[in-house]
Amino acid sequence: MSNDIFRKGAAWIKGEIVPIDQATIGVTDWAVTHSDVTYDVVPVWDGAFFRLNDYLDRFEASMQAYRMDVGMDRAEMTSALHDMVSRSGLKQAYVAMVAARGTPKVAGSRDPRDCQNHFFAWCVPYIHVVKPEVAEAGVSLYIPNNVHRIPDQSLNQRVKNYHWGDFTAALFQAKDHGYETALLTDGHGNLAEGPGFNVFAIFGNKVVTPKQHVLHGITRLTALELCREHGFKTEERALSLEEFLIADEVFLTSSGGGIFPVARVNNHHFSNGSAGPKATRLREAYYDMLAQSGLRSAISY
Amino acid sequence: MSNDIFRKGAAWIKGEIVPIDQATIGVTDWAVTHSDVTYDVVPVWDGAFFRLNDYLDRFEASMQAYRMDVGMDRAEMTSALHDMVSRSGLKQAYVAMVAARGTPKVAGSRDPRDCQNHFFAWCVPYIHVVKPEVAEAGVSLYIPNNVHRIPDQSLNQRVKNYHWGDFTAALFQAKDHGYETALLTDGHGNLAEGPGFNVFAIFGNKVVTPKQHVLHGITRLTALELCREHGFKTEERALSLEEFLIADEVFLTSSGGGIFPVARVNNHHFSNGSAGPKATRLREAYYDMLAQSGLRSAISY
Repeated sequence: MSNDIFRKGAAWIKGEIVPIDQATIGVTDWAVTHSDVTYDVVPVWDGAFFRLNDYLDRFEASMQAYRMDVGMDRAEMTSALHDMVSRSGLKQAYVAMVAARGTPKVAGSRDPRDCQNHFFAWCVPYIHVVKPEVAEAGVSLYIPNNVHRIPDQSLNQRVKNYHWGDFTAALFQAKDHGYETALLTDGHGNLAEGPGFNVFAIFGNKVVTPKQHVLHGITRLTALELCREHGFKTEERALSLEEFLIADEVFLTSSGGGIFPVARVNNHHFSNGSAGPKATRLREAYYDMLAQSGLRSAISY
Repeated sequence: MSNDIFRKGAAWIKGEIVPIDQATIGVTDWAVTHSDVTYDVVPVWDGAFFRLNDYLDRFEASMQAYRMDVGMDRAEMTSALHDMVSRSGLKQAYVAMVAARGTPKVAGSRDPRDCQNHFFAWCVPYIHVVKPEVAEAGVSLYIPNNVHRIPDQSLNQRVKNYHWGDFTAALFQAKDHGYETALLTDGHGNLAEGPGFNVFAIFGNKVVTPKQHVLHGITRLTALELCREHGFKTEERALSLEEFLIADEVFLTSSGGGIFPVARVNNHHFSNGSAGPKATRLREAYYDMLAQSGLRSAISY
């Protein structure tokens, strides 16, 4: 049973655990004014973190890539996450860990090396990037032709970041046209990713997912593992829109809900406009995997 | 004389004026988690806003481009800015007005149309993007070859935004190599802009500034006007790095300090490694213009 003041979620900020509505950051923090921030999101499912060490590995790699030092080691961050979720009482949660650049120790400095970096975390009831009933019917995706994913040459997309302006512009178009969500290309004919998810295409016994201009998601990794367990060959490489549209089935992966079969991309229908059987089987396999004890870190409530 | 609790700055948030250290935003606001925010920065100089209506014009155009409605009209925003700076007591200030996406009114929604947009503002003692003593000696710029400006095809750079990941990566390189700041290209041989400034090149009686993948800065506009007043022809167009490096003089423009002569770009020196005479004259003309009553909105302290 969740503690009522934490019903909407909780946050860990400067060693204190507070209700999510009280979790704030200064308006002049470079996390806000420069989107100079990296983060990760780990799911909590049935009272346990899933693949927490994999998420922490990536989070630490992201901080290193951004040259941030939040002054906490892995044990301290792990402990903060456990304490926070435990106090919230949430058994199914979306848990964000965040490293922010902070503000310069020298007022007025424009040098990122002068900033006091800091860590915070927050959790809310589990978020499905796509609602389960929509996922089960098959997701509709809109690919705009005038907005493209921010390229690796501008921003290393291997580092999980909050630069979502391209996604937001695409989401407005998708929603205006009656689609569930959006998918972006790299502007050179190849697919990239969507807001909060990676994309996969199934061709016979082969599965392909883009490699560049995308986050190498932990759920993307899980899906690649699951595909191999299910007898698929997997390829991480450039995937053109042309090739994508002749796939047998298409699916998305996200830590916010796992694997989502896709029924429609623009005017093109997959699996007669429903969730394909192979993607649906993978979706079920993901939920089975969430329950596997080897990848779970149980939380003491 | 500035009010002591506002010595470091003040903010206007939800109708209240608070010390800058108390000005915060929720960690789940899409302004943070999606950098879904637009802003503008107007200088206050000798107790008056400079070109406030031009900045408000752009800010309103930015909100419209992002489909934000903060529920305040121009008179209300103007009044908030005047009240805030007046209360702060600051006579020379850097004043930010911000429109944030907010959070969805429907919990868990991923639809940007569901969010409750909001306005806030803050001011701090005047920030020089480059310190005056550095500007007077001539700025050094580092152009990295492995980080390029986020392109218009990914993010409309005419809308002032906080997507600074490219700038931050470039700034680390610039600082590591001993340069004052960084300048980015578009990755296709043409110049774009730097962190907080536009760039100009002088060739004889002609001045050229890039047009694409850049903010059309108000100080860029002021500089174009000043150049024409000083007898230069002005061109807004693609400016290749090759052409740029054979310019007579180079300068930067920013609302945080006006016009900055450039002495060095990577290993190339301009004006024998000092601030060029034409750019220096334009810098002085900018400070004269700040004092012109026609463009000033006096603040009642």
